[in-house]
This record gives sequence, structure tokens and C-alpha cells, in this order.
Amino acid sequence: MTDFEAVAKQFVTFYYDTFDKNRADLSALYKDHSMLTFEAQPTQGTGAIIEKLASLPFAKIQHRVDSLDAQPSNETGGILVMVTGALLIDEEQRAMMYSQTFQLQPDGAGSYFIFNDVFRLVYPA
Amino acid sequence: MTDFEAVAKQFVTFYYDTFDKNRADLSALYKDHSMLTFEAQPTQGTGAIIEKLASLPFAKIQHRVDSLDAQPSNETGGILVMVTGALLIDEEQRAMMYSQTFQLQPDGAGSYFIFNDVFRLVYPA
Repeated sequence: MTDFEAVAKQFVTFYYDTFDKNRADLSALYKDHSMLTFEAQPTQGTGAIIEKLASLPFAKIQHRVDSLDAQPSNETGGILVMVTGALLIDEEQRAMMYSQTFQLQPDGAGSYFIFNDVFRLVYPA
Repeated sequence: MTDFEAVAKQFVTFYYDTFDKNRADLSALYKDHSMLTFEAQPTQGTGAIIEKLASLPFAKIQHRVDSLDAQPSNETGGILVMVTGALLIDEEQRAMMYSQTFQLQPDGAGSYFIFNDVFRLVYPA
């Protein structure tokens, strides 16, 4: 496994664990120029992104990751990550499918932050 | 609609129209450092990518685009594009869901090429 794949896997595990426990803690992963497009609604900056995630109308959520692909995205250490999986929301037994793409960028301090983030539910064809 | 969104829409329309008519014609969109991860199988370079796409075991295919999101991906004009949609393959009546992420990069000649390309079928949860 190459480095970018190891980073992508570690990131994805941490991201969804944190999302499912306390979404506000994801603020450490975004910066002021980070972008999130969540179900077609664009937001930018840590504050607006966390506000958007916190406003989502569910209390309990669980992400399942079914696929994870990563590629180097530029010459400055960026990593493109595409995830597909399923969401189990609150007490609903039926899962919903989703797809989410991140571009991670080194933060200059040995870690990574999320520069791009796009989330979509995927509906049955 | 901002420029990157217009470019993303135009690209996606052209990409799937070309894919569905003659996949070999997509070679104009890739370069030797382009990456494609198709159902977890990584390939790099125009030749290998077109060979991979040409080898897919279906004759007739039709892509439907259900969602398209775009964000600027770097300071050199890159564009991240995430698509979700449905595939209708050969004579099968049942569509399959897919998700595909591209990173487009300006080619220096007024157009764009695909630097990153990740494709996954999405299975019902």
C-alpha cells in the first residue's frame, strides 16, 4: 500500500468515526478556504461548514464505507479520495446510499486538511 | 453559474456522450500522467486508460447523470467534479448506479484534460 492510500484510509476512518460521534469535532479538519458542497448546497470555511453539518436533521447517524479509492491529486502532496457507502439514520432500519469525494492537502505541520468535500445521497436507479 | 461549473457541465456532457458512442475517442481527454481507478483497478496514461475502457465487457452503454457537483481544486485552474447517476448496459432493463469523480486541469491550450478519474458502481444498501 502506498503512502497516499494509507493516509486516505486513516483519514476516512477518522472522519466518519468523528462525524458519527460528534460532528462539531470535524472543525479541526477544515480551514477557511475549505469547500463543502452538501446535497448541492455550497459552503466555504470551517465555521460555515460545521454549521451546515451540525444543522443536518438527524440525531444518530452511522456511516458504512463500502468502497474507498485514492489517487495523488497534485505535486504538492494532495490526495483525492472517493468513498461510496451507506448511511443509517436515527432509528430507520433502511440504509441510504451515499458518495463523498474529498481532496486532502498537507497542512505543513505533518498532517492533512480537507480542501474539497462533496457529498451526495445516491438514489436507486 | 460560475466558470468552473459551466466547464464541469460541458465536460460531463461531452465525456458521457463520447463514452456511449465510441470509448476510444476519449483518448483526447487524457494525458500520460492521467490516472484512472476503475472499480478499484488503477491504470495510468492515455494508452492504458483507453485499453481499460475498451476492454469493458459491454457493447452498448448509456450513462444517465443524476447529480453533478463542481469545485475549484487548486490555484492553477483545476476543477473537481463528482457525478452520480445510472448506467444502462446492453439490453438489460435494470439500471446500475454509479459514482465518478474527475479532477480536470487546464491543458495550457484553452482546454482541459482529466488528471484524476475514479469510477465505482454503487450497490443498493
